Amino acid sequence: MMKALGLEPLYRSGNDLPWIPFTPYSDMVTVKLLKVDPVTGQTVAMLRVPAGEGLGVHNHYGTVIAYTIRGRWRYAEHGWVSSAGDLVYETAGSQHTFLAERGEDVEVFIVLEGALEFIDPEGRTIGLENWRTFLERYYRYCEAKRLPARDLSDFS
Amino acid sequence: MMKALGLEPLYRSGNDLPWIPFTPYSDMVTVKLLKVDPVTGQTVAMLRVPAGEGLGVHNHYGTVIAYTIRGRWRYAEHGWVSSAGDLVYETAGSQHTFLAERGEDVEVFIVLEGALEFIDPEGRTIGLENWRTFLERYYRYCEAKRLPARDLSDFS
Amino acid sequence: MMKALGLEPLYRSGNDLPWIPFTPYSDMVTVKLLKVDPVTGQTVAMLRVPAGEGLGVHNHYGTVIAYTIRGRWRYAEHGWVSSAGDLVYETAGSQHTFLAERGEDVEVFIVLEGALEFIDPEGRTIGLENWRTFLERYYRYCEAKRLPARDLSDFS
Amino acid sequence: MMKALGLEPLYRSGNDLPWIPFTPYSDMVTVKLLKVDPVTGQTVAMLRVPAGEGLGVHNHYGTVIAYTIRGRWRYAEHGWVSSAGDLVYETAGSQHTFLAERGEDVEVFIVLEGALEFIDPEGRTIGLENWRTFLERYYRYCEAKRLPARDLSDFS
Repeated sequence: MMKALGLEPLYRSGNDLPWIPFTPYSDMVTVKLLKVDPVTGQTVAMLRVPAGEGLGVHNHYGTVIAYTIRGRWRYAEHGWVSSAGDLVYETAGSQHTFLAERGEDVEVFIVLEGALEFIDPEGRTIGLENWRTFLERYYRYCEAKRLPARDLSDFS
Repeated sequence: MMKALGLEPLYRSGNDLPWIPFTPYSDMVTVKLLKVDPVTGQTVAMLRVPAGEGLGVHNHYGTVIAYTIRGRWRYAEHGWVSSAGDLVYETAGSQHTFLAERGEDVEVFIVLEGALEFIDPEGRTIGLENWRTFLERYYRYCEAKRLPARDLSDFS
Repeated sequence: MMKALGLEPLYRSGNDLPWIPFTPYSDMVTVKLLKVDPVTGQTVAMLRVPAGEGLGVHNHYGTVIAYTIRGRWRYAEHGWVSSAGDLVYETAGSQHTFLAERGEDVEVFIVLEGALEFIDPEGRTIGLENWRTFLERYYRYCEAKRLPARDLSDFS
Repeated sequence: MMKALGLEPLYRSGNDLPWIPFTPYSDMVTVKLLKVDPVTGQTVAMLRVPAGEGLGVHNHYGTVIAYTIRGRWRYAEHGWVSSAGDLVYETAGSQHTFLAERGEDVEVFIVLEGALEFIDPEGRTIGLENWRTFLERYYRYCEAKRLPARDLSDFS
């Protein structure tokens, strides 16, 4: 009889994956892509923002779970500051401006559902990010740096 | 001691909710919004497309589950035709053009995650739909028709 | 360069799939499995309950979206009755007893996340259902009826 | 007109929340609960396992995202060892036995969907964990230690 075999857990070593400039939004902010799901569109990544730097205004079209690994950051729109060990849970339909505090560089572990839309000061769309744009930025970077590219959308 | 009480299931009567023109994309296509989730952004709705009509090209930024209740429809980009009782499961990052076949009007039950982006023939964004735009279209319709508006984002 | 190609939508014809007795919980209640996701565990199915019949008490370990296609049903624990066109949205951690009203047989379209636990009157676990048990029940049925079994967990 | 206002992001300080023994499975392993979602059942938590200790065999009824903060751990069933900065993505329907390597204590950030079922060597269910059991363990701990308990299921 055919069996309904479960899939093995996916293990991905963070050391084997590159930090990639989060262009065109910033040359200073880098992203390490860990995994994308081509069915649900979920993106799992690390975000690194140098102390004192930021990321422009963006809208979320799905939830974001952001767990701070090091450094301190906040959203310009809110009163709290997130430090190592803190959780920020962002709801679908929210809009923020990321600011890294002075001191240590910021590193955040991120689970992103759906899309991220960056907008300019007049509210116009600059870019829409989803699992495909993250994966293609990774492929472009690997090609430019002559690194072997892995299929980060795969389970095998 | 504080208790971790589960929430009761939400029951929503389809007869109590209006069919709303899916403007500005179409005056003929109507949507009946059943539920939105302000945390995850999930939208549950019915879509009604008159026989022979269609909806413009759109991108998905999350999955869509579409179960056909009546009528026959297809995507211009694919070979199958979906009839009553058929399932279409659309992945995040896909792009389609909805076409209702001649004959019976089409009615589809839809579970939408994330955002829907309508684009023009040159690939430019016409509009981005998410739980908030669906809920606001419902509120505007209720106000225009002097219908009592319900909070379709609530669980109580 | 490698491309981040999206997956095509999955089309599944309801007519091609069998109604399977929901054993061991009931011989009268049948399930038509439409799709399972081996990553997230999501199960998409139809449930058919003859008028006047029911399903035992069960716990949900994820959400359930239940859209009624025909007939009338309710949960013994709640006051509403769901008819064709109505939505029931069940939260993770809820417990119910399904009862089909007299009259027409009940047919419900279901999107199930996580597991379903059937319990006996003393609260003991009778069985835990998830994407694997649903898929294996389908495989066993196909084998017993000498029907060709399809891989309902696949996207291709 | 009624507005479809989005919810603010939730900020939760890790320092304000206690490490709680993960009884009855272990007195040595502790859990810090950060957030539960009473609709979807999602649980966000930290897991701390002393070097050389482990957690019994368990089944997953939803996905688990596990990002290692410090220490080294593996599953008895697989060949890899996860260190700080590595991602493990576990699929619904998988079964594992958690083992912390010798050396540093292990700390893992976890996003858990659906339920977790601990089983004994004969495959019998010892316990089923979900958002409610995690939240109630937290409430019991707060009561025993006379700590003020917070509603970790709330967004406000």
